Amino acid sequence: MRFNARFRTSIRKNEYPKDFAHCYGCGRHNEDGYHFRTGWDGNKTITVYTPKPEHTAIPGFVYGGLLASLIDCHGTGSASLALHRKNGHEPGDGVEPPRFVTASLRVDFMKPTPQGVMLQAVGTPEEIHPKKFTIHTEVYAGDTVCAKAEVTAAVMPASFTVKK
Amino acid sequence: MRFNARFRTSIRKNEYPKDFAHCYGCGRHNEDGYHFRTGWDGNKTITVYTPKPEHTAIPGFVYGGLLASLIDCHGTGSASLALHRKNGHEPGDGVEPPRFVTASLRVDFMKPTPQGVMLQAVGTPEEIHPKKFTIHTEVYAGDTVCAKAEVTAAVMPASFTVKK
Repeated sequence: MRFNARFRTSIRKNEYPKDFAHCYGCGRHNEDGYHFRTGWDGNKTITVYTPKPEHTAIPGFVYGGLLASLIDCHGTGSASLALHRKNGHEPGDGVEPPRFVTASLRVDFMKPTPQGVMLQAVGTPEEIHPKKFTIHTEVYAGDTVCAKAEVTAAVMPASFTVKK
Repeated sequence: MRFNARFRTSIRKNEYPKDFAHCYGCGRHNEDGYHFRTGWDGNKTITVYTPKPEHTAIPGFVYGGLLASLIDCHGTGSASLALHRKNGHEPGDGVEPPRFVTASLRVDFMKPTPQGVMLQAVGTPEEIHPKKFTIHTEVYAGDTVCAKAEVTAAVMPASFTVKK
């Protein structure tokens, strides 16, 4: 799988406002979290992550819940990027991106995922409703597709910000 | 949701051999992991977990990847319990249970999951093949179903234990 460093200009890293930066998956202010970042590579969305030694299922293989977490955050980040682009914006232009939540997550585990390898989640966003996107995702370890997934993400409802 | 303490005699906690006890989700030897334990409550399988403060999505709500991880480990643990029972065994009888891996995971997020509440994943195992079970799962926060899920788990192939 080709790796393109351009995606590192990331919506996740730089652009969400502080109140939304506590996510265990992608929040820059969550010291214990994964710090996933999702960005564009052409018309694909990409998130990379190298699992830590503790993210093991059995020795040598990555824990499925880590893959699900990567796919989940990749999905919401990709939906955010897609709607932001549809609205005429790109990461870095100073406009706050829309915020999404996961409606559903489907993961098919294709191959055991080896430890010690950088993983790449590569997504194709599909608009299925003005406020809802499905992200078709493959997770690569090197050239091997270890998981295929679909995440449907919806624009975050206002009720999510009532409780703090 | 009724909570029944009987399930605490857990297959996950006590019975997997040491080589299989490193899982980030359920392994007793993974110091950084969740230490999920899954047991029977009648014909249902139950896993309980109270998310830590860092397992947040946005302040006040639990991170979806944590729920996916809980559901994933609940699914494989439940499949293990179900086949073990089919084979005439119960946790604590000294016979090593079968070990499962996740084939697929589907989660529908029904409601935002509040922080600070003990979560209960409650599963109904369905045998779909002699070596494969689908676990139909609901995750409760108090009386609220926050997620519905299906995990299909397969008996661990020998190839998983080649690499260590």
